Amino acid sequence: MVVPPDHPRYYSLLYRERLIEKFKEGIVVAQGLIAHGRGEAFDYILGERTVPSALKAEKAAAALLKLAKRPVVSVNGNVAALVPRELVKLSEALGCPLEVNLFYRSEERAKKIAELLEAHGAREVLWVPEEELPNLSSERRKVSKRGIATADVVLVALEDGDRTEALKKLGKKVIAIDLNPFSRTARSADISIIDNVIRAIPNIIKFVKEISYEEAKKVLEEYDNSLTLKESVKEIREWLDKMIEEM
Amino acid sequence: MVVPPDHPRYYSLLYRERLIEKFKEGIVVAQGLIAHGRGEAFDYILGERTVPSALKAEKAAAALLKLAKRPVVSVNGNVAALVPRELVKLSEALGCPLEVNLFYRSEERAKKIAELLEAHGAREVLWVPEEELPNLSSERRKVSKRGIATADVVLVALEDGDRTEALKKLGKKVIAIDLNPFSRTARSADISIIDNVIRAIPNIIKFVKEISYEEAKKVLEEYDNSLTLKESVKEIREWLDKMIEEM
Repeated sequence: MVVPPDHPRYYSLLYRERLIEKFKEGIVVAQGLIAHGRGEAFDYILGERTVPSALKAEKAAAALLKLAKRPVVSVNGNVAALVPRELVKLSEALGCPLEVNLFYRSEERAKKIAELLEAHGAREVLWVPEEELPNLSSERRKVSKRGIATADVVLVALEDGDRTEALKKLGKKVIAIDLNPFSRTARSADISIIDNVIRAIPNIIKFVKEISYEEAKKVLEEYDNSLTLKESVKEIREWLDKMIEEM
Repeated sequence: MVVPPDHPRYYSLLYRERLIEKFKEGIVVAQGLIAHGRGEAFDYILGERTVPSALKAEKAAAALLKLAKRPVVSVNGNVAALVPRELVKLSEALGCPLEVNLFYRSEERAKKIAELLEAHGAREVLWVPEEELPNLSSERRKVSKRGIATADVVLVALEDGDRTEALKKLGKKVIAIDLNPFSRTARSADISIIDNVIRAIPNIIKFVKEISYEEAKKVLEEYDNSLTLKESVKEIREWLDKMIEEM
């Protein structure tokens, strides 16, 4: 389908088509398409923009990643399909690996995702897991020694709540990008970014490049995730109020 | 995947699995999975229940269908996958046909959907279109002479805005079931039911059986669709307020 650039929801339709293309290539699974739809709806009621609270969370995420000793970016099928180049740029800005971690895991699919990231310039993609996380029964327990297993900060995008909780129990800090402010992932992460990955990751990269270590410490001291989550819901409510007026 | 019945979101997960199963059978398309995800998110912020304004719209829909001379129920892949038996029961209660109408149309897929409905007891499924609607370029323009082409009231579930507008231009009344109160379908239909088809269709059947012709006329006289739409958004806003308190 060709989407005209003047369509009011051009980007949303463009990324939808991209996801379906990657589904056909075996990068994305059927459940991932449904999850993307949920994200589209939440993005819509956020006004398809980075709300002020999300920008705050993105700055805090950059600060936490900057101060991390061993950060890692966890990648699933959807995020690889949507923003492969941006994931590579983020890993370069942080000097950290990308790790493929999948709920619907198959060796073939993990390899395809790694190859997609490498085709976009990734230097180190961890996709062959050697270890298993405790407290987690799904395929997501399978992790890499040089990645999630030994990381102190994990950035997860578009993920399930179980894993965020398991990672936190192991003493790791978790940054989650999730458009649903009510999801278990958003509620259990240390920093919850209620934003679309297509906007969130470029914003995080910008902040990582700009922020100093001193400023990063200050940003984290002042950051309150539960307040940020509430603010994002209030921003949805304000958008609804505006829509009611127009109806 | 086996979903335990005590899971807080049991029905949502059950229908998600059913949709994926029907996707594998060729009833549902990839775009339908994404659309389902959007519906899941809107249903979630409605509290996964029939809100009072939706119940009002369902009663009005039953009234309009009851008074219609030639009603028809338009069926796409998602609604056939989710509630095949309920669609059959509705067509029986109204004595009207079911018509397969698809945006991503192929003869094979249309036939599969018709067979699914027949397997659930449908007596008359129109799926071989003989006519074309003006004002519509998509595959949805292809309609049946004994169905949408000559109908005075069309019930569409989970549809696209273009078609609702095209049907209205032809002087038909349109009832839409759509969880997104902001969609073009919801905004352009005569009666917009902001509810999940799994709850909406059984409710409509109940009202069709209960309501008298006299009462149906009265219900329609008093019904205000734009007010109902606004109320549904207010109900979402109230749900958000409750969630903010719990956060």
